[in-house]
Amino acid sequence: MILGILKEPSPETRVSLHPEAVKVLTASGNKILIEKGAGESSFLSDDTFLEAGAEVKDRKDVLKEAEMIFQITPLDAADHSLLSKGKYLFGVYQPLFAKELMKTLADTGVSLFSMDSIPRITRAQSMDVLSSMSTVSGYKAVLLAAANLPRFFPMLMTAAGTIAPAKVLVIGAGVAGLQAIATAKRLGAVVEAFDTRPSVKEQVESLGGKFVEVPGAVEDKGAGGYAVEQSEEYKKKQSEMLEKSIIKSDVVITTALIPGRKAPILITKAMLEKMKSGAVVVDLAAANGGNCEGTQNNETVSIDGITVIGNSALPSTMPQDASKMYSKNVQNLLKLLLKEDKLNLNFEDEIIKGTCITHDGAIVYEPLLK
Amino acid sequence: MILGILKEPSPETRVSLHPEAVKVLTASGNKILIEKGAGESSFLSDDTFLEAGAEVKDRKDVLKEAEMIFQITPLDAADHSLLSKGKYLFGVYQPLFAKELMKTLADTGVSLFSMDSIPRITRAQSMDVLSSMSTVSGYKAVLLAAANLPRFFPMLMTAAGTIAPAKVLVIGAGVAGLQAIATAKRLGAVVEAFDTRPSVKEQVESLGGKFVEVPGAVEDKGAGGYAVEQSEEYKKKQSEMLEKSIIKSDVVITTALIPGRKAPILITKAMLEKMKSGAVVVDLAAANGGNCEGTQNNETVSIDGITVIGNSALPSTMPQDASKMYSKNVQNLLKLLLKEDKLNLNFEDEIIKGTCITHDGAIVYEPLLK
Repeated sequence: MILGILKEPSPETRVSLHPEAVKVLTASGNKILIEKGAGESSFLSDDTFLEAGAEVKDRKDVLKEAEMIFQITPLDAADHSLLSKGKYLFGVYQPLFAKELMKTLADTGVSLFSMDSIPRITRAQSMDVLSSMSTVSGYKAVLLAAANLPRFFPMLMTAAGTIAPAKVLVIGAGVAGLQAIATAKRLGAVVEAFDTRPSVKEQVESLGGKFVEVPGAVEDKGAGGYAVEQSEEYKKKQSEMLEKSIIKSDVVITTALIPGRKAPILITKAMLEKMKSGAVVVDLAAANGGNCEGTQNNETVSIDGITVIGNSALPSTMPQDASKMYSKNVQNLLKLLLKEDKLNLNFEDEIIKGTCITHDGAIVYEPLLK
Repeated sequence: MILGILKEPSPETRVSLHPEAVKVLTASGNKILIEKGAGESSFLSDDTFLEAGAEVKDRKDVLKEAEMIFQITPLDAADHSLLSKGKYLFGVYQPLFAKELMKTLADTGVSLFSMDSIPRITRAQSMDVLSSMSTVSGYKAVLLAAANLPRFFPMLMTAAGTIAPAKVLVIGAGVAGLQAIATAKRLGAVVEAFDTRPSVKEQVESLGGKFVEVPGAVEDKGAGGYAVEQSEEYKKKQSEMLEKSIIKSDVVITTALIPGRKAPILITKAMLEKMKSGAVVVDLAAANGGNCEGTQNNETVSIDGITVIGNSALPSTMPQDASKMYSKNVQNLLKLLLKEDKLNLNFEDEIIKGTCITHDGAIVYEPLLK
C-alpha cells in the first residue's frame, strides 16, 4: 500500500505517523509519502522521515498518490476534491458531532476510520487514541496547575519555615484523572479524587489518592467504562460533598465527560467564590462546555481571584511524545488492516466495524444509522 | 516600634511581611501599618492584615509614621523625600551594584538593612533571603522546563508504547540547583548535576542525581559557600565534559553565579546547535548576563529549535509562598534587632554589621568602604 502523511493545519502540532512507525511500515513493503514539513512542529525534520524510509512530497501529490491518508485534523473542503473512491482516511472526526461532514465524505467514496471511535475493549486498548491523549492531558493539566499556582506543591521544611503541601482535587478518575492523580502525587501534593464509579476507588488509592465517596451512584458496565447520567437526588448529595472538598483545595482538575452530551457543571460560580484566593482550576472538559461555570474553551480566565484554565488541546502542547503515542495507536490499528503490505479489510472484526464510519459510498457507522 | 509595610511596585508581586508575622510582631507590642492593597498581588487581602492586627493606611502616611519600613524593591526618589534620619529601611538593594543609591540613602540618614547581604553563616540561615528565594526559583525552573518540553518527564509504560524518561542536567548545585534536582527527580526525570565544588557531590547523590565530575577544581571555603573563578585549563576540561552531557539532555537548568561578577557562559551557541530539537534551557543566571549564549533576561527565546527561558523573577511568580518565606526571613532578623518592641542595635553582632549598609548619615558596609 501507499501511505500518505499530511501536515496538520495550525494550531495542531502533532504528526499522525512517527518515523519509528515509518521504519516498521516500509520494512513490510509499504511505501510512505510525507508532506514537506509535516513533522516540523513536532520537532521532527523531513530528514528524520527520509532516513526512516519515507519520500517527501507536496500536499497535492500525497493526497493524489496515497491509498491510505493520515491527518489527525479532519480534512477540509479543498482536500475533499482530491479524494477518490477506494481511498482510506484516518483521523479524529468525532462523527457523532459531524453528521453532515460524514455524508460529504461518504459521497467521495472514501473509507473513513475515525480514531476516536475505536471500541473501548481490551483488545483495542493499544489503538485507543482517546486513552493515550488523555494520558498526555492529565499529566499536562497538573503541570499547568503547578506553574500557575502562587505556591508550592510539595511540603518543604526550610530555614525560612515549613511550607504545607498543596491540596489537589481531581474530579473524574478516568485515564486523564488517574494520570493527574499520579503526577500531582509525584510533585508532592495531597490528592483527593472523586468519581461516580465506586469501582475506580481502588485505582485512586493505589496511586496514593484519597477517594471521596458519595454513596448511591449508578454505574453501568455497558457504558464502555464511562460514567453515566445520575439521579437528581444523587447529584445534590454529590454537589454538597464536592463543595466541601473544592473549597479547601488549592487546585481542582476536572475531567468529567458523558459521551455525546454537554459536560456536567460540577463547580458553580457560588463554589468558585468560596475557594481559596489564588487557587487554580484546570477544566479538561472545556471543549464540551466545561465542568466549571465560567470556563472559556482554550482560554485562561480569572474569576474572583481563581485562575480557570480551559485549554482543551493539551496533547498539542507536548507534540513529541503525543505524536509518538498517537502514531503507535495508528500503527496497531494498521496491524489489523494490513497483512504485510496488502489490505485485509474484515468487517466481522468489531474493531474495524466500530471504527469505520464511511465505506463504499455510504455511512456504515451504526450510531449514525439509528 | 512602628513598622510599615509598603505595596511593591509592579512587576513585583510579593509582600515583605506576611499576616503570620504581623500577628507575632503586634503581639509583642509593635504597631504595624500597611499600605492599602500591599498584599493583593500575593492573594492576601487588606482584611487579612487587619485581622492580624495591622492598620491599613495610604503610602505617604506609612512612610511618614513608620520607624521601620519594609519594601523588597528599592524605594524610588519620590519615596526618599519622605524618609528622615533615624528610620530603618529593609529591602533587597544589591548594594555592590548600587553605590550611588547607597550614598543618597546615607544622606537621608536612614539605616538600610539590605536583606541580600545577610552573611552566609549557619546562625543567619533563617534570615537568608537569597537561599529562600533560590528554593522557589529552583522548583519553578523545573516546572517551567516541564511545561515547555514537548515530551514527558517521567517514564511511562502505556498501551500506546513505552515513553523514556526525560534527561535533565542541572549546572550549579547551590540551593536553587539542589531544589531543581529534587523537583526533576520527583517528576520522574533522570537527573545529572555538575558543580565545580566536589564537596556538593554527596548532596547531589542523596537527592538521586548523578554527579558529573570534572577533576581539578579549586574550592574556597572562605567564599561563603559560593563557587570561585577557575583556571583556564580547568574551564576547558569542564566545557568538554559539560558539552557531552548537554547534548544528550532534554532539559538543562543553569544556576552558575559568581558574586559581584558577570555569570560565566557554560552553554555556547555551538553547543545549542548540537542539542536535541525541542530541548529546553532554563537560565537562572539571566539577570547577571546568563550562563547560556543568547539568553535574554525575562524573555523566552527560541534558538535553533531550543527554548531558552531567561525569567529571573521566578519568586514573583509564586508570591503566596515566596512572600511567606521572605517574611519569615525578615521576622528572624527582627528577632536580633528588637527586644519585644524596643530597638536593640548591636553592631558587635556580625549579622547586623554585615547586613547594615547605611547608618547615621554614612555608608557603613565594609565591602563598599574599600
